[in-house]
Amino acid sequence: MSENRFLDAVNSPSDIKKLSVEQLNVLAGEIRDELIATVSKNGGHLASNLGAVELTIALHKTFNSPEDKIIWDVGHQAYTHKILTGRREKFSTIRTEGGLSGFTRPSESEHDVFASGHSSISVSAAYGVSVSNKLLFDDARKTIAVIGDGSFTGGLVYEGLNNAGRDEKSNLIVILNDNNMSISKNVGSVATYLSKIRTKPRYYLLKTGTYRFLSAIPGIGKPIAKFIRNLKNYIKSSVYGTTMFEKMGFAYMGPFDGHDIEQLCSAFEIAKNKEEPVMIHVLTKKGKGYNFAEESPSTFHGISKFDVETGESVCGKESYSEFFGKMLCREAEKNNKICAITAAMSLGTGLERFSDVYADRFFDVGIAEEHAVTFASGLAKNGMIPVFCVYSTFLQRCYDQIIHDCAMQDLKIILAIDRAGFVGLDGESHQGLFDVPFLNTIPKIEVYSPSSFDELDSVFDHVVNSSSVAVAVRYPRGCEEELPEDYNYSGDDFDIYGDKGDTAIVVYGRLFANACKAKAVLKEKGIDVRIIKLNKIKPINKKVFENISGLKNIYFFEESVKNGSIAERFGSLLLENGYKGAYDVTAVGEEFVKPATVESQLKKYGLDADSMVKKVSESIG
Amino acid sequence: MSENRFLDAVNSPSDIKKLSVEQLNVLAGEIRDELIATVSKNGGHLASNLGAVELTIALHKTFNSPEDKIIWDVGHQAYTHKILTGRREKFSTIRTEGGLSGFTRPSESEHDVFASGHSSISVSAAYGVSVSNKLLFDDARKTIAVIGDGSFTGGLVYEGLNNAGRDEKSNLIVILNDNNMSISKNVGSVATYLSKIRTKPRYYLLKTGTYRFLSAIPGIGKPIAKFIRNLKNYIKSSVYGTTMFEKMGFAYMGPFDGHDIEQLCSAFEIAKNKEEPVMIHVLTKKGKGYNFAEESPSTFHGISKFDVETGESVCGKESYSEFFGKMLCREAEKNNKICAITAAMSLGTGLERFSDVYADRFFDVGIAEEHAVTFASGLAKNGMIPVFCVYSTFLQRCYDQIIHDCAMQDLKIILAIDRAGFVGLDGESHQGLFDVPFLNTIPKIEVYSPSSFDELDSVFDHVVNSSSVAVAVRYPRGCEEELPEDYNYSGDDFDIYGDKGDTAIVVYGRLFANACKAKAVLKEKGIDVRIIKLNKIKPINKKVFENISGLKNIYFFEESVKNGSIAERFGSLLLENGYKGAYDVTAVGEEFVKPATVESQLKKYGLDADSMVKKVSESIG
Repeated sequence: MSENRFLDAVNSPSDIKKLSVEQLNVLAGEIRDELIATVSKNGGHLASNLGAVELTIALHKTFNSPEDKIIWDVGHQAYTHKILTGRREKFSTIRTEGGLSGFTRPSESEHDVFASGHSSISVSAAYGVSVSNKLLFDDARKTIAVIGDGSFTGGLVYEGLNNAGRDEKSNLIVILNDNNMSISKNVGSVATYLSKIRTKPRYYLLKTGTYRFLSAIPGIGKPIAKFIRNLKNYIKSSVYGTTMFEKMGFAYMGPFDGHDIEQLCSAFEIAKNKEEPVMIHVLTKKGKGYNFAEESPSTFHGISKFDVETGESVCGKESYSEFFGKMLCREAEKNNKICAITAAMSLGTGLERFSDVYADRFFDVGIAEEHAVTFASGLAKNGMIPVFCVYSTFLQRCYDQIIHDCAMQDLKIILAIDRAGFVGLDGESHQGLFDVPFLNTIPKIEVYSPSSFDELDSVFDHVVNSSSVAVAVRYPRGCEEELPEDYNYSGDDFDIYGDKGDTAIVVYGRLFANACKAKAVLKEKGIDVRIIKLNKIKPINKKVFENISGLKNIYFFEESVKNGSIAERFGSLLLENGYKGAYDVTAVGEEFVKPATVESQLKKYGLDADSMVKKVSESIG
Repeated sequence: MSENRFLDAVNSPSDIKKLSVEQLNVLAGEIRDELIATVSKNGGHLASNLGAVELTIALHKTFNSPEDKIIWDVGHQAYTHKILTGRREKFSTIRTEGGLSGFTRPSESEHDVFASGHSSISVSAAYGVSVSNKLLFDDARKTIAVIGDGSFTGGLVYEGLNNAGRDEKSNLIVILNDNNMSISKNVGSVATYLSKIRTKPRYYLLKTGTYRFLSAIPGIGKPIAKFIRNLKNYIKSSVYGTTMFEKMGFAYMGPFDGHDIEQLCSAFEIAKNKEEPVMIHVLTKKGKGYNFAEESPSTFHGISKFDVETGESVCGKESYSEFFGKMLCREAEKNNKICAITAAMSLGTGLERFSDVYADRFFDVGIAEEHAVTFASGLAKNGMIPVFCVYSTFLQRCYDQIIHDCAMQDLKIILAIDRAGFVGLDGESHQGLFDVPFLNTIPKIEVYSPSSFDELDSVFDHVVNSSSVAVAVRYPRGCEEELPEDYNYSGDDFDIYGDKGDTAIVVYGRLFANACKAKAVLKEKGIDVRIIKLNKIKPINKKVFENISGLKNIYFFEESVKNGSIAERFGSLLLENGYKGAYDVTAVGEEFVKPATVESQLKKYGLDADSMVKKVSESIG
């Protein structure tokens, strides 16, 4: 007989509905063990998932997925949901190549309504689903958005609440999973406000109508009755005033203990029967049930493999993020105009030390990338040098702000773009493959793509001290690659490495190391190639085209989507400049890149050294 | 002696400070006459400016611009500000080529802090300025964001308030100019909430500390004393509860009569001396003082030249927006899954009739483009066909949502992109020159660019009935151009018009008409060109490259920024496909396009028929 008595018998949400609260509590423990064991092997999001175990169980106990639609904001807290919806067998494959995604994915299960990865989308998406349910079916299907308090710093949530809250007939349910954290410690006045609601020992319940309504439900049974009894002492507290969610049109219930399955089920049962938008405020503990994660939830937010006994990460060399953080501290010491801004990613972007040492010049704005850029532009207006440290994928959120509030205003801000390029197993939503093409469209902004820590250091020093316009400096996830000893970085806009033959490889950033390896192998095969290495990728220094006249074959390898890429711009400019040879581009086509190791992704898209060798030798040979 | 007694003497804010309230009221009337007279000639934003006359006067009476920084959200309500800050002489040139901008522009005046045009940025930008003031100067300079209630539907405002509100020492002042309108009638639960505050005849004043504080100011003088007396009856109302702005960390004052200069000045004076973030709620009437505008503020939001006596627009033919609106109604009658979504632009995008006839399928989400796309994706999830009607420039705001919530999810939504390309005198922030390059970067989405009403009709019918992916259909501001009678639109991805010679012009959308004119003129000069007309511009149908083998010269003319354009993609693909001839691209370089008539913009960037003729004949001849 299996050790996991209840978990082994759960293959779909209907299996949960049969279990008693006591049994569900045991199940919760079994799920926690499974989460810790699997994430310690595969890496992944741990703390948020540990916090949401009972919440997820109560959701599936009360609602009927997939008829009722549960939409998870930032799908990375949906591990328990995956386990409970027929994916327990495959759970050990989560975040492995070809395995379960670390996020919700409709392609995996009918229980995953929306593919999410970026924050703060759930209310808008759920409201859309809810409205269309009403238009198409006019039935009682419920739509539930589950969203963390961290995601509440994103403006998109307010846009969604503002629309759903005015729709008095909407049956949308928003569950605010409040663990007083986003990824780093949650920030902002709304977080402060939530902590006020949270710390007062009183419960708001749906006003007046609730009781009449409840008494009219036939056979609501013991749990709700008990629930009401427990609440009676708190009811009077509703005269304390209305929450801001009520001001936005939502009936508000809470706060509830997010680890008390019985209490949660009772609250959901009431919400289920309301005919108005409802917000249920649930308090959870991030990392619940695993000491190391409870104590350091940021560390256990998204984590690599770790040792279950010690909680320590099994990792190695210094990453670009860590190097950048150190470098920024050094620069900030020399220059008191340097500010650092993060959108809830101070750990991920290497800013922990900066936030301690230069606290007055450090700004964690919450998950609010748009505000980050406009706020940075405000700082720059007065001559400060704001550095917005952000993952490539999240920078997509502030495209318009970079255009309108920064570039159009001739304001110098520095975008330090971490996780540029492939990011490995972190979901197709998180690959950093768009920043180059979209920054390429923006007038005036300059974009650099260094290939090593030393180059990053040199570029950053240059842009801090010499640039007069907005600048982006991008670098990949992980560690630096080794470069050949005989390559010397000039600090110019481009370098040419090698001077023989009529064949050139064009690259920038991380791929330069692969190109160097390919060059060496090709040399052994008797093929001489030179490498045109772009250091500044926008604007392209036109002098590079003075070096093409003798060339017959040019291969551009780029870790980016191809449409709108530097390779396409380069190709067009080659043609406009009269180049008559052959041109070949290797980049990512019109698709979203699936999670896999970075090594595997580079290989799949023909960007590793072997693929470069193959491409060049076969097409020339 | 001039008719405008006070206005003639006002050359800077300091001139206002000498005037009495009675004199300022007369000045307000003089400014209104000036606004109506000028906008009736030049076109522009009228209703919002008429509503903000007293507010602007009171701001400059109380604060000391440019030391105190006044940041206008959506700078188009800053006409009075321009008049009062030394630009009265030039005011008649507003929104003319080379004249004053219709928006705030730092290049025009030290009193214009931020260049704005897109909504909801002011709180974030002002907070950035305010923080840097404190870091750099540690002095008492004030930063004031002036923002309309319409802009409050944008999530960026909440991100800004969330950050500024937690900074208890911030001296940021936010003035909520509440006219119960954005561009169309304001929408959403926050609007409903504001209307509740607005309609209750009570004033909130800064709590407790205010009185002690006030009594400590030496010589606050009669106005404030009177103000306090007037307020005393309302003080008790503060027990009614706290506003949502207070919950977000702002001291709240209001609502005040936005046309009562004395009351406004008193309120501003109090706010000026507070050492915490303050929100001042001011009620104004959009269109105030001009009957036609008061009655139809949407019509007089942004308007072409009009007749002052009748209020009627001096205009002509049917626009693309009007045609699109009619067409969408027709399609919606046939297909009950079609929904229309607008971000506060129902009039501008031609949706007025749709909103009446198909009210249950019409969604004005407020100025919330991000939500619009994610909400549309939610609708599409259930098989609805949401059509988001949006100006090109505002679509920039939801780049990430199109990637993450739509394209990555394989959801079919239709982006109906109005004002694509040059938009004329509407500010450099509003030119529609980025949508093609940024949509080009997004996997899977298809982009069409019809050249006439008939083509738009045909494309739209096709995408509603046949497309399975997200689609963008883009069309320009204004009316359709005449096309040659012997051109037949095939409905294929591209058409080739003309079959002689070894020279081709490549175009799409509005420029096809210019290319046809150029072709005719070139023919007369003995130069045969064929026109490759792209109908679907993304993905490019590769078959087009089967038609290039005999060509020696290819000219691509594109109404877009060049970086990342279709012309560059086309050029790279030409080269990759072995084209050995000459290639030339005419598009907009790395700059922001200044306001001018569309005709003049086309000419300046070499995209009118004459320029096309010149380019081709000179380089070939």
